[in-house]
Amino acid sequence: MKPHPIEDIYSAHRRILAFIHETPILTSSSINRELDRSLFFKCENFQKTGAFKFRGAMSAITALTEDQARRSVITHSSGNHAAALALAAKLNHIDCHVVIPEDAPEFKKKAAHRYGAHVNYCPPGMLSRQALAEDLVRSHGYTLIPPYDDHNIICGQGTATLELLRQVGSLDALILPIGGGGLIAGASIVLNEIAPATDLIGVEPELADEAKRSLDCGRILPATERTTIADGLQAGVGVLNFQLIKKHVRQIYTATEDQIRTAMHMIWQRMKIIIEPSAAVALAALLFSDIDRKYQRIGTIFTGGNIDLSSIMTEYCEDDNQGAIAAL
Amino acid sequence: MKPHPIEDIYSAHRRILAFIHETPILTSSSINRELDRSLFFKCENFQKTGAFKFRGAMSAITALTEDQARRSVITHSSGNHAAALALAAKLNHIDCHVVIPEDAPEFKKKAAHRYGAHVNYCPPGMLSRQALAEDLVRSHGYTLIPPYDDHNIICGQGTATLELLRQVGSLDALILPIGGGGLIAGASIVLNEIAPATDLIGVEPELADEAKRSLDCGRILPATERTTIADGLQAGVGVLNFQLIKKHVRQIYTATEDQIRTAMHMIWQRMKIIIEPSAAVALAALLFSDIDRKYQRIGTIFTGGNIDLSSIMTEYCEDDNQGAIAAL
Repeated sequence: MKPHPIEDIYSAHRRILAFIHETPILTSSSINRELDRSLFFKCENFQKTGAFKFRGAMSAITALTEDQARRSVITHSSGNHAAALALAAKLNHIDCHVVIPEDAPEFKKKAAHRYGAHVNYCPPGMLSRQALAEDLVRSHGYTLIPPYDDHNIICGQGTATLELLRQVGSLDALILPIGGGGLIAGASIVLNEIAPATDLIGVEPELADEAKRSLDCGRILPATERTTIADGLQAGVGVLNFQLIKKHVRQIYTATEDQIRTAMHMIWQRMKIIIEPSAAVALAALLFSDIDRKYQRIGTIFTGGNIDLSSIMTEYCEDDNQGAIAAL
Repeated sequence: MKPHPIEDIYSAHRRILAFIHETPILTSSSINRELDRSLFFKCENFQKTGAFKFRGAMSAITALTEDQARRSVITHSSGNHAAALALAAKLNHIDCHVVIPEDAPEFKKKAAHRYGAHVNYCPPGMLSRQALAEDLVRSHGYTLIPPYDDHNIICGQGTATLELLRQVGSLDALILPIGGGGLIAGASIVLNEIAPATDLIGVEPELADEAKRSLDCGRILPATERTTIADGLQAGVGVLNFQLIKKHVRQIYTATEDQIRTAMHMIWQRMKIIIEPSAAVALAALLFSDIDRKYQRIGTIFTGGNIDLSSIMTEYCEDDNQGAIAAL
């Protein structure tokens, strides 16, 4: 029996199908003309909670035993995974705890609250986050749902690639961003089984290139402390994830901060949709790296659309508009 | 024979069908929950040139006589109509001139250029725009394509409502913004003929409420000089348009600048799509006005998605990012 059978992804898809959006594929003729390739963007920015993370979270939640489901779940990721887990838990009537550093951006704290999670604050830093989460697991019996280094999470994220292939047919390559590696690990299982001719390529911010450096030296290197605007990709690669990346990912390209900004701006402007910086890294690599011209039909996934609009919409949010929004 | 037969809209649709996008309908369960109604948003922000105006422009261009087509077309609208006409003309190998005031925003000038129009600058003000355009018409024999007060334009815009009805089925009401009145005039012909049970409702910015005031007193009042962030709606109502509005529009609601900003922010945040302020006025009215509760299934059209991202994306466009974009 294979360690990551495709059947587990089909099974995850069946469990989550009633809860998720089958997100649309968008294309842009002007971007295709410019790159002289055909790109297919799967819009997980339109997914519930605004990110593909909802797939993995729902997959993990629906795989809990009855006993685990009676107790709470917990996570210490403050970003899209936390919001996704909060909503997935709520929809299944399960209590959810989130450990968030005190210095996390306000809109991330609000998102976890909005989806009904109990928020536990901790001092800044990855270690204190983990420590508090493990403490709560020990003392209360909560189940820790990690953001990416987990078989059920990987299978949930794999459903995005499963749908993408069903929606667009055969592809020469699938280009996906790597943070912890959940999305690309799930994709690797799917491609390996049902589309072995499609090459799998990774992309990372230059300032968070742990996966590339790890792949180069054959073992997992720790995440650096540098920050990138593609904050969703700022994570060390997971152990399960790295095993799959090593086996199936042909190459990893990196993009600079400016290249990521340019690609994001291009998507906003040409496609009129909102994606977060992490979701723009694949297009950045296509625009600025020397990716093999033999890849003509290329799929990618807009991983999320959660950005803090209040800080960038200053022109449209003068005076007391924020109050009006909060009151809605 | 009726003065505005639905057959003219079917005919416009057939002429433009190969050029336009059949734009998708999006819904938002969270907005529906909040309003306790079912809203169907037709996403003309995804239309070519980023606005429904491309329908009208293409309808007018494809209705030209061979003789007119050999000579150039011209318009003095600097916004979405100009970009739409420029592209529609280009796709039909027709020269297009646009008269733009020197003080128009840079990105509007660029848009007309990008789509291949010849840009003629004039001093600020509506009168000098018209004067220069008429001068060019007289001296060169160009055909003036007005932005809304024109039967072919109205029929082109009507195709958006035609598609909307085919996509979502019956509606209790259709709520549309009014600038010059092209979109709602086209809609009135369609509803009157094929969905007479659907009430047609107009919305305007409080600061550009010419249509409402004109409807109240039964004759067209001139546009005021006030400015609104919903700049696409800052236009006097057209003559043909007003005849149809008077006959078919049940009521016109207005929204304040803050209400428009709040609605726009809500769409960006919840739906992860970019709409321009003019496209947010219908939701603003639904959020803040006392629109009859009997309207449960409501359609509206996101009229466009053209905003100047460079000015609002400051956070993501520090340093020299603009250069990178321009170089692409």
